Amino acid sequence: MLIVQKFGGTSVGTIERIRNVAERVSRAKRMGHDVVVVVSAMAGETNRLIDLAKSAVPKPDPREMDVLVSTGEQVSTALLSMTLISMGFKARSLQNHQVRLVTDSAYTKAHIKRIDAQKLTSVLKEGAIAIVAGFQGIDEQGDITTLGRGGSDTTAVAIAAALKPHARNGLVCEIYTDVDGVYTTDPNIVPQARKLKQISFEEMFELASSGAKVLQTRSVLFGMKFDIPIHVRSSFNDSEGTMVVNETLDMESVVVTGISYDKNEAKITVLHVSDKPGIAHSVFAPLAEAEIVVDMIIQSASSDGYTDMSFTVPRGDYEKAMAILQELVKQKKATYVVGDDKVSKVSLVGVGMRTHSGVAAKMFKYLSDAGINIQLISTSEIKISVVINEKDMKKAVAVLHKGFGLEDAK
Amino acid sequence: MLIVQKFGGTSVGTIERIRNVAERVSRAKRMGHDVVVVVSAMAGETNRLIDLAKSAVPKPDPREMDVLVSTGEQVSTALLSMTLISMGFKARSLQNHQVRLVTDSAYTKAHIKRIDAQKLTSVLKEGAIAIVAGFQGIDEQGDITTLGRGGSDTTAVAIAAALKPHARNGLVCEIYTDVDGVYTTDPNIVPQARKLKQISFEEMFELASSGAKVLQTRSVLFGMKFDIPIHVRSSFNDSEGTMVVNETLDMESVVVTGISYDKNEAKITVLHVSDKPGIAHSVFAPLAEAEIVVDMIIQSASSDGYTDMSFTVPRGDYEKAMAILQELVKQKKATYVVGDDKVSKVSLVGVGMRTHSGVAAKMFKYLSDAGINIQLISTSEIKISVVINEKDMKKAVAVLHKGFGLEDAK
Repeated sequence: MLIVQKFGGTSVGTIERIRNVAERVSRAKRMGHDVVVVVSAMAGETNRLIDLAKSAVPKPDPREMDVLVSTGEQVSTALLSMTLISMGFKARSLQNHQVRLVTDSAYTKAHIKRIDAQKLTSVLKEGAIAIVAGFQGIDEQGDITTLGRGGSDTTAVAIAAALKPHARNGLVCEIYTDVDGVYTTDPNIVPQARKLKQISFEEMFELASSGAKVLQTRSVLFGMKFDIPIHVRSSFNDSEGTMVVNETLDMESVVVTGISYDKNEAKITVLHVSDKPGIAHSVFAPLAEAEIVVDMIIQSASSDGYTDMSFTVPRGDYEKAMAILQELVKQKKATYVVGDDKVSKVSLVGVGMRTHSGVAAKMFKYLSDAGINIQLISTSEIKISVVINEKDMKKAVAVLHKGFGLEDAK
Repeated sequence: MLIVQKFGGTSVGTIERIRNVAERVSRAKRMGHDVVVVVSAMAGETNRLIDLAKSAVPKPDPREMDVLVSTGEQVSTALLSMTLISMGFKARSLQNHQVRLVTDSAYTKAHIKRIDAQKLTSVLKEGAIAIVAGFQGIDEQGDITTLGRGGSDTTAVAIAAALKPHARNGLVCEIYTDVDGVYTTDPNIVPQARKLKQISFEEMFELASSGAKVLQTRSVLFGMKFDIPIHVRSSFNDSEGTMVVNETLDMESVVVTGISYDKNEAKITVLHVSDKPGIAHSVFAPLAEAEIVVDMIIQSASSDGYTDMSFTVPRGDYEKAMAILQELVKQKKATYVVGDDKVSKVSLVGVGMRTHSGVAAKMFKYLSDAGINIQLISTSEIKISVVINEKDMKKAVAVLHKGFGLEDAK
C-alpha cells in the first residue's frame, strides 16, 4: 500500500515530537508500505519568520516572503529525515524544487499545477522514505512559492493524487493532527460530541469552510476531485480517526452529520440602498478591492425602490469594511450602514439534507425554543448556516447537537 | 563594472545591519554597476541549526545536515532582497537550485564543479540586484550541499569567476568583514599592525592557512586560479580595505608581508620509532582514519636505526590523537609518545622570501634574543612557521613585527 502521511506544526513542534513522528512513520514502513511523509514547519516557526520579515520592512515583497517562510518546512524535513536515518531507515528529505511540485506564481497563495511523480517514485523504488516539505512549491521559473496557510494538507493530498497511478495495493492519505478525527461538533463546546467514523468529501468541505479547523478546504477539494481517501487522525495516539471518502448510499440516511461554528464573524447591513441594477457591484467591489472576503450575502425584498443588504465579513476586517462603506453613504448611494462585530455563525451540515425536507424548520424551532434570535440565514444544498449573537453560540451548538440526535452512535 | 559583494554572518546579524548592507548595495547599484550579492546566514543561526540537529540525533546524516543548515542563508537572501525592494530597487533572492551552483556530493564539505552563469546574467540584464545564498550548492542529483564553514567567501569568488566573461568594464569581488582589511598581523596583539593596501594571492593563502581568519583559503585559491581581484573591506565603514591580487614585480621588494599565528595547536612527538620504510604510514594512517588533520611533520635524523617524529594537530583533536598513538606503543612500534597541548604556531609570510635569503636566520635570532625557545620549524617557499610555547606567542609576534619593519609604511 502507498501511504502519504502528513504531520502538522504541532506534531513536529519539538525534537521529542519529531521522534514520535519518526516512530509512527517507521511502523508504516516496517509493515511493508511505501511511505511518503509531508511535514509542516515546527509550531511557531512560520510566525517567527513572518515577524522577522515585518521587522525588516512593513510590507514584504511576496516573492521574498515565500523564500523566507519556506525555510520552516525545510528544517522539519531535515530533522525528521535524519531521525529516521539514525533509526536505521533509508530516508530522503525532498524540497519542492526536487519533487517538482509546480504552482502558478501567485506568491503566498499559489495554486498547484502539476507534480512530477518521477522523483518521488524513484526514491520509493530505492526503498527510502520520502520526506517532503509541505506548504510550498516552485513556479515555472523555478522560484519558490507557498500555498498559503494550511497548505501542507493540500500538498499531502496532491502528492497522493500524483502517486495514485503508481500505488500498489491501494492508497491512503493520513492527515495527523492534534485531534482524534472529525467530530459531530467541537468537543470543547459540546462534551457529548461524537467522533465520526466516516464523512463524505462534500460534508467535510462544508464543515471546513464554515469554521471546523480540522482539514484545509482545498485539500478536501483535491481529495474529492482525485478520489483520495483521507484518514484524519491524532498524532498523539493510535486510535482510528475519521475517513473522508466519496459519498456512499448509506450516508444519506443521516440527515445532519456535523455542526460547525465560526466566532470570527462580523455582520454589516447597508440600509436603504436604491434597488437598481449594478448596486450590488457598487457595494461589494470596493470591499473586494480591499481584499475583504464577504460571506452570507442577504438582500431583503425591495420596497419603494430601495432595499437593505446584509452580509458577514471576517471580524478582523470589520473596521476597514465599515470605513469603506461609509463612503457609499457620502456618495448618497445608501442612507446608512450599521454593523455588529459580536456575532457568530453556526452551520448544520449533512448530505441527507438533500433528501430530507424540514431540516431548516426544525433548526429554527430548536433555536427559538432556546430563546436564540436568528439574524441571518443562508442555505446550500447540504448546509444551513445562521448568524446569531456570539453570546448564544455555545448554547445554539448544544441544542442543535442534541436536537438532531448527534450524541447517539451512528 | 560588475561587482560581487559578499557579506558575512556578522554583517547581516540583525535587521538593522541588513538595512546597512542594503544601503551599501544600493550605492553600488546607483553608481551604475551590475551587482551580485552573496550572503551568509545571520550570525548565530548556523550554530542554532546545528544544535537543533544534535539535539535530535547524536550523529546527523550529512545530506540532511546540509538541507537543514542551508536554510540559514536562504533566510538572509530573502530579508536582504525584500529590504532592497522596499527601497525601490529591483532585487531577486536566488538559491543554488536556481543559480545552479553545482558541486560534488561531498555533503558538508562539497566542492564547486561549475556555475551556470545564465540565470545570474538574465537577472542582471533585467536591471535587478541578484542576492545569492552563500555557502551552499546542489549536486548533480539536485540535492542540497554545503561548502563547509567559510564557504560563502568561496561562493562569492566562484560566482565572480563564472561571471567574468560577462563583465562589462571590469570585475571585482568585495568581501565585507568585521575588520578593515588585511593587516601585517592581528592588531589585537600588536597595536602597531598596519593595514596592507595590497597583498598577493600566494601570501594571502599562506596567511589564511596559517591562522589569519580574514579570508577563507579556498576562496583565495579560486581568486588566484581565475584572476579575480578580491577587495577585503569592512562592512561597518567606507574606508578602502586590502586588494588581494596577482603578484606584481614590486611586491618582491618586501621580504615579509605579514605575520599570522594559530593558538589552536598541539604538538605530539613519537619517540624512538624504528626507522624503516612505511613507518610514517603506520603513524599517520590511523590519525587520518580518525579524520585528524596533521600539520608540520618533522622527522629527526636517524641514529641507531631509530628516529623521532614530531607534528602538530588541532588542539581539539589532541586527546584523541594521543590515545590512537598509545596503540603504537602497545604494538611496540614506538617506545613512547609525548605531547604538549599548550603550543602556538607563528608564521612569517612574504613573496620576497623567494629572492631574499637569510629570513629564517633573522627570525630565529629575533626569537632567541627575546628568550623564546623554538620547538618545531617548517618552511615553504614564501612562509616560515615555528611552534613555540603558547605563553610566548604574543611576544614572538611583536618582536618579529618590529624586527622585520612591518610597522613602517610600505
